[in-house]
Amino acid sequence: MNNLCYVNGEILSAKDGVLGISDLALQRGYGVFDYGRTYNGKLFHFEENLTRFRNSANELHLKVPLSNEEIISIANKLINESNLEIPAIRLLLTGGYAESTPPLENPNFIMITEELPTYPANLYEQGCKIITSKYQRELPHIKSINYLNAIRLEPLKRKHNAFDVLYYTEDSITECPRNNFFIFSGNKLITPKDNVLYGITRHMVLQLASEHFEIEERKVSLEEVFSADEAFVTSTSKNIMPVSVIDGEEIGNGKVGERTKTLMKLFDDYTTAF
Amino acid sequence: MNNLCYVNGEILSAKDGVLGISDLALQRGYGVFDYGRTYNGKLFHFEENLTRFRNSANELHLKVPLSNEEIISIANKLINESNLEIPAIRLLLTGGYAESTPPLENPNFIMITEELPTYPANLYEQGCKIITSKYQRELPHIKSINYLNAIRLEPLKRKHNAFDVLYYTEDSITECPRNNFFIFSGNKLITPKDNVLYGITRHMVLQLASEHFEIEERKVSLEEVFSADEAFVTSTSKNIMPVSVIDGEEIGNGKVGERTKTLMKLFDDYTTAF
Repeated sequence: MNNLCYVNGEILSAKDGVLGISDLALQRGYGVFDYGRTYNGKLFHFEENLTRFRNSANELHLKVPLSNEEIISIANKLINESNLEIPAIRLLLTGGYAESTPPLENPNFIMITEELPTYPANLYEQGCKIITSKYQRELPHIKSINYLNAIRLEPLKRKHNAFDVLYYTEDSITECPRNNFFIFSGNKLITPKDNVLYGITRHMVLQLASEHFEIEERKVSLEEVFSADEAFVTSTSKNIMPVSVIDGEEIGNGKVGERTKTLMKLFDDYTTAF
Repeated sequence: MNNLCYVNGEILSAKDGVLGISDLALQRGYGVFDYGRTYNGKLFHFEENLTRFRNSANELHLKVPLSNEEIISIANKLINESNLEIPAIRLLLTGGYAESTPPLENPNFIMITEELPTYPANLYEQGCKIITSKYQRELPHIKSINYLNAIRLEPLKRKHNAFDVLYYTEDSITECPRNNFFIFSGNKLITPKDNVLYGITRHMVLQLASEHFEIEERKVSLEEVFSADEAFVTSTSKNIMPVSVIDGEEIGNGKVGERTKTLMKLFDDYTTAF
């Protein structure tokens, strides 16, 4: 693997990128990030990542030190000079060093190219199995680095041989730690509206679906999920991944639904043409 | 300032301590810490820090790579070789590097000596002013690095000229981001029992108080707080700091209460003799 990073103005091999131990992400979990991908070597809807990244930073009183043009230029340089099959790019902005004054005014800004993770074909052909867990992400609209609960649940996922965890709170579901969640009830495509992170893939799926299905963005109960005809999750690396089983119960007939297949095809056509 | 750190086996100047940018605390907020202090150059109740640190690590499926004896020995070396007025020591254990396999089995372990922060005498003589904010810390018994909300509230504190923020949830209060919270109602010393981090100073205050006051560890409502006779916060660096005003309302007569003064004296005698 030969991937590069950018750390506060310097481009170097990702394995050589470091931050001092008084960084506020390290000491206080204070940071935001974003994660974009490429298709055919080109950054994909990256302006949406940048808009979200700036919003996240703003909510944490942090200022992104570069313009969009500068970030895009560095991202392309990193991608072109890294040797990756499907380059992805991670942006990370932290609170800066604990001792810097005034606080938060000298954030540390990092960009890293990474190989986009891929997933076994059978998960797309047969759907994945997930479990549910009661939890509400703090400040859900902000793409903060707080994945403590998500990583802490990894052993539970392994125990249940689950691909992912669907969070719920009281009686309504929200999202998975790294994915948005959708169901089909007949021809209605339904996804939670509040207390979730607005994924860029989520947004594209809603756009692509709008010409073919009725769309409802609203509160979704656990009961509705279990009685849904089809279910799937979306993310930058997974695109649309069908969900066939939740907490051991089959969704619909336990196979990948036809409407989900239609959306997967639409998405695939869109990205292939990109 | 001349303070030292220990990073994965190496002792160096704290300003030279670094971690790679794929560290899971940096990328995913996945880490725990603890913070101990000295009196008269000697580590103070540090075994309690170590016990809590191991519990926190355990809850995050992380293993502290050194024995207590090894940590104490390194801590003393760092303290003796740093040039600090009141040395404090921070322990930090992260999830390790994102690419390490199996995950979480090679945590990064850091120790840093720091100057203990001190606070103006008038805060102890007149009491501090705090504000309230609705929030429940995630996994409150774990001393994780997640202080995102606390740091995000700093501008609100500055706006209200407040020394600290008291968290509440529904109708009961819990703690401040870095302090435990107590009230006196007559001769009863009352402090929340659930959904708080058990501070080492909190524990000592309860022990010292037990010979002089009736103690109740239980749910404490916001109404009770506003009608309390006295209030104070406790922490490793603040010891016992009286609270005179909350959300602009005076607690008791708005001065430092006599029972709080008694506890401050008891605490002071105890630590002076240490």
